[in-house]
Amino acid sequence: MDYDTILKGKYPAKQHARRVVDYIRNKVPGASGVIYLESRMSKLIEDSDEPEPFRQRRYFFYLTGCKLADSYVIHDLDTARTTLFIPPIDPDSVMWAGLPMSPDEALAKYDVDEVKFTTDLNAELAHLSSSAVPRPNPATVFAIPGQVSEQVTFLGFDSTNFSVLKEAIETCRVVKDEYELALIAKANAITAEGHHAVMKHVRTASNERELEGVFTGHCISSGAKEQAYPGIFAAGRSCATLHYVHNDAPLEGKLNLLLDAGAEWDCYASDVTRTFPINGRFTPESRAIYDIVLRMQEECIKALKAGVVWDDIHLLAHRVAIEGLLKIGILRGGDVDAILERRTSVAFLPHGLGHYLGMDTHDTGGNPNYADKDLMFRYLRIRGKVPAGSVVTVEPGIYFSRFIIEPYLKDPKHAEFIDAEVLEKYWDVGGVRIEDNVVVTEDGHINLTTTVKDPEEMERIIQSASS
Amino acid sequence: MDYDTILKGKYPAKQHARRVVDYIRNKVPGASGVIYLESRMSKLIEDSDEPEPFRQRRYFFYLTGCKLADSYVIHDLDTARTTLFIPPIDPDSVMWAGLPMSPDEALAKYDVDEVKFTTDLNAELAHLSSSAVPRPNPATVFAIPGQVSEQVTFLGFDSTNFSVLKEAIETCRVVKDEYELALIAKANAITAEGHHAVMKHVRTASNERELEGVFTGHCISSGAKEQAYPGIFAAGRSCATLHYVHNDAPLEGKLNLLLDAGAEWDCYASDVTRTFPINGRFTPESRAIYDIVLRMQEECIKALKAGVVWDDIHLLAHRVAIEGLLKIGILRGGDVDAILERRTSVAFLPHGLGHYLGMDTHDTGGNPNYADKDLMFRYLRIRGKVPAGSVVTVEPGIYFSRFIIEPYLKDPKHAEFIDAEVLEKYWDVGGVRIEDNVVVTEDGHINLTTTVKDPEEMERIIQSASS
Repeated sequence: MDYDTILKGKYPAKQHARRVVDYIRNKVPGASGVIYLESRMSKLIEDSDEPEPFRQRRYFFYLTGCKLADSYVIHDLDTARTTLFIPPIDPDSVMWAGLPMSPDEALAKYDVDEVKFTTDLNAELAHLSSSAVPRPNPATVFAIPGQVSEQVTFLGFDSTNFSVLKEAIETCRVVKDEYELALIAKANAITAEGHHAVMKHVRTASNERELEGVFTGHCISSGAKEQAYPGIFAAGRSCATLHYVHNDAPLEGKLNLLLDAGAEWDCYASDVTRTFPINGRFTPESRAIYDIVLRMQEECIKALKAGVVWDDIHLLAHRVAIEGLLKIGILRGGDVDAILERRTSVAFLPHGLGHYLGMDTHDTGGNPNYADKDLMFRYLRIRGKVPAGSVVTVEPGIYFSRFIIEPYLKDPKHAEFIDAEVLEKYWDVGGVRIEDNVVVTEDGHINLTTTVKDPEEMERIIQSASS
Repeated sequence: MDYDTILKGKYPAKQHARRVVDYIRNKVPGASGVIYLESRMSKLIEDSDEPEPFRQRRYFFYLTGCKLADSYVIHDLDTARTTLFIPPIDPDSVMWAGLPMSPDEALAKYDVDEVKFTTDLNAELAHLSSSAVPRPNPATVFAIPGQVSEQVTFLGFDSTNFSVLKEAIETCRVVKDEYELALIAKANAITAEGHHAVMKHVRTASNERELEGVFTGHCISSGAKEQAYPGIFAAGRSCATLHYVHNDAPLEGKLNLLLDAGAEWDCYASDVTRTFPINGRFTPESRAIYDIVLRMQEECIKALKAGVVWDDIHLLAHRVAIEGLLKIGILRGGDVDAILERRTSVAFLPHGLGHYLGMDTHDTGGNPNYADKDLMFRYLRIRGKVPAGSVVTVEPGIYFSRFIIEPYLKDPKHAEFIDAEVLEKYWDVGGVRIEDNVVVTEDGHINLTTTVKDPEEMERIIQSASS
């Protein structure tokens, strides 16, 4: 994807507004008035004069493409005009922070119709209210609960609606346009270089933290200041801790590194996992597991197209896992259907196959059911059909976690299907996960992830690094 | 300083508690009961399932040395016993996060007398209340306003005091013990390597962000996950923006890099600034300004010892600046006293000389007066005497900011002292700041900063890098 060319244009905020308005009017026929959204406000750390790390509010970004703090946007449903409000110059702060963005600069940069200062916000709201503008229907302010500042007044409007806007944006966000796909592709390109840099350092590093430093430093150098999520740099048996956060253990004597890290680019996430041998050569056990997980991923990606039910793809991953684990002897004593039915493979793949990806790493609209009594589906973050234009992560894994597996070994219902003696050889593999970011299309899919995953190519990269 | 040996011991939480209790009893004679403090609670990002970046609450850390979230501490004033409460195991989270720290591990790691689970907190509070324990005086809970969770009950105590604890800790924090100095020295050691790595990359980098990547990556690789503050990587005229945050401009055609960045180590900050030529050779103008600022810093550090008045040191910096600027002709037409009296040098050194450094970058206890009508002192973050054991930053600078200087050129009162023609040659210098972290001692001072600042040595490091 030629994301660089696409990203030379503006973030399509007006197009997003149109889709959100369509959704609202579908739920509230004849809806008239304005959408009102706030950016995240800047805030100091408690008991300190340093700023809290800033993360733009996604609803606001979706309708503006603007990363400024302390800003507001109004989109008029009836005229389809978007007005952005940005902070005025504070002369006392210029010596510290430099000049802020001007309204002209903002108008040139963002896909909005007008830019004013935040000091004009309440006056503009009054100008747009029913007392000032003729509207086809009662003038309503559509806003999100808990995201309206105290000083903002909706006087003069006929009503406020706090129930539909959040849902509207969260639903629209599921289907990405070309610009959003380009942002995710750009994030993926930076992530791929970061993963490759880690592969080049893994043989000579002595601690997980050095690899986190390599990856994070690379992302910042490439302009991606933010990580999409806290990266996982897990060596050896820690590969089995799904959201391992310590990233501070020695590498010596450990087999594999599980690297789950992704850059963010202009509020859009990448989310990529690779697992590779620290010394540059897979052991037979590690390679056997790697090959199973790679096949799980390939089969699942191959099955993707608009309208497939994600639950089915998740089941497919379990089927391929069971086939593979039967072949290497960790599972035994039953056929694929019997073992699947018994849910024994959940011991090795306890999480869901993947999730929507967008402005949030676990993006909106997946409708998970974390109370599902069926453990195989409890952590599945998408349920039901995936539409064209959605981006999913496909991230199968097989893990050897004593904490998770031992209860299965003690439960006769599962123990009959697990060969504890064969299993014994695999604990040091830790866990393998392979994760790509994939666009669902009408006819199939497009993989946005460009990080190497061929096991022999990874080995070559690791071995090629100078020591 | 042999910080590594010192840091093998425990963070001296009990000693801190003793000092805080002494302070409280000085203010509240016969104070009896308990100190109650909470850690920062873990929290999700608004509208997301990702965690907010975590920063430990400093008051809690001061009495525990513990970086865990969702924890509590009680220190009994009458028995001098400290009890730490840490989160219990949540079986549902172990598969995601691994096993949490156990009470035994916590007891071995922290300087506390007992470790319990947070589920025991209210019961323990009840055990310690006046109804359960005989106390010499009415039993009081000393706590910090706004930092007591809803579910916590102080039933059974005779009173609560929300007015003295925060002040007590903030005052005690000014004077550091050996362990705290070792933490700051350790942070400084990592920072020095990071600055040197940037010097080695600056000649070949093409954008400020690459240098931020080098520095941040180095810190993370060294185990310092957190920066003490948002780093400043400012090239060219941006050196004059005191808290420049963009770090994304090209380096081409620019003279100097101002690098103000410091690692944090176990909640303790370093805060170091260096300014050096991007191409490895100072221009005559840059070198002239550099030499003045270096002399300002050297004179100020030389003057430091217990009991000196920080305002006087700040004035000394201005005196040396004026002498230097007179010598190179930017200032003219008056002697040092006259120009100092007129406050003209504030045009070039608009900020304060430095601040306390500790768990916060701008540490507690400085008693600044940001409403001071005298602009020369308004931004001075320490006022009055500095005691032995305090750590200050000594960070003089000279800046060429049009936004700041132009009003001075238009004001005849100042314009008579400024040679606008000579000044014209200096705008591209941008600004020079040199900042070290210095312990005040009874007889003098100890400089904890090990980053190179000799101008010729910096030039050598920059030039030595392979291109």
